Amino acid sequence: MAKRKSMQDDPCPVGRSLDIVGDRWSLLIVRDAFDGTRRFSDFQRSLGVARNILADRLRNLVEEDILTIQPASDGTSYHEYVLTTKGDRLFPVVVALRQWGEHYLFRQDELHSQLLDKATGKNVGQMALRDANGEVLNADQTIVKKIR
Amino acid sequence: MAKRKSMQDDPCPVGRSLDIVGDRWSLLIVRDAFDGTRRFSDFQRSLGVARNILADRLRNLVEEDILTIQPASDGTSYHEYVLTTKGDRLFPVVVALRQWGEHYLFRQDELHSQLLDKATGKNVGQMALRDANGEVLNADQTIVKKIR
Repeated sequence: MAKRKSMQDDPCPVGRSLDIVGDRWSLLIVRDAFDGTRRFSDFQRSLGVARNILADRLRNLVEEDILTIQPASDGTSYHEYVLTTKGDRLFPVVVALRQWGEHYLFRQDELHSQLLDKATGKNVGQMALRDANGEVLNADQTIVKKIR
Repeated sequence: MAKRKSMQDDPCPVGRSLDIVGDRWSLLIVRDAFDGTRRFSDFQRSLGVARNILADRLRNLVEEDILTIQPASDGTSYHEYVLTTKGDRLFPVVVALRQWGEHYLFRQDELHSQLLDKATGKNVGQMALRDANGEVLNADQTIVKKIR
């Protein structure tokens, strides 16, 4: 990876988060993990990424406690990568990227994957930031302040 | 940038989105734009990124219609980068990264920036995916299907 300024001391949580998951492969791996992918070879097939890059990103995600390594669920000697609670909490990030992509990056009749409510089989609603009364808050209705 | 497989034909909206904004600098630029940064030199100061990389990412964000170039608001000969509607719709992505970082990447007493509701000055709520009744949906309560 290119040498880069670390954002680990950044007072902005967005900067710190991007320092950890702010490359395309890491978030694609997390996306695949949400879809049930668990093995190195399956991540590799899904993503078409070079093995050394995949190994590097998986190692980093394990070090950051986003994925954890488990023995294979079928009793073979393989091991599997599974989302931790910390990894699971990246769900809104992946959903937000999905919903933006759905809106802007597909033609109307183009094949695309959709996220459905498992219980009802219906489309999930649009995710949004809301105020205390449940009203949608846009960026210009918010302000960023530094506090302890 | 490293040569990479394009996800522009990916049926998954997450893949397509990450193809466009899936590098750390692009999302940090978008974050700064939400915070009111508009000029090349101000992005550079905020991010500490090399000028050639910043220029490349800004050009890409303009090409992708996430930022647009405007004459400087103060009448000088500078130009400014301003979020388009498409860029503005990345707000949930940035907020989701912020809230994950707030939860996992700061010590309790550590200085950090917070997102407040401008009208009330209060903290914004946690963003989450919700079902038709407004109940929070976790990843394991959803399923991904390919449809047209």
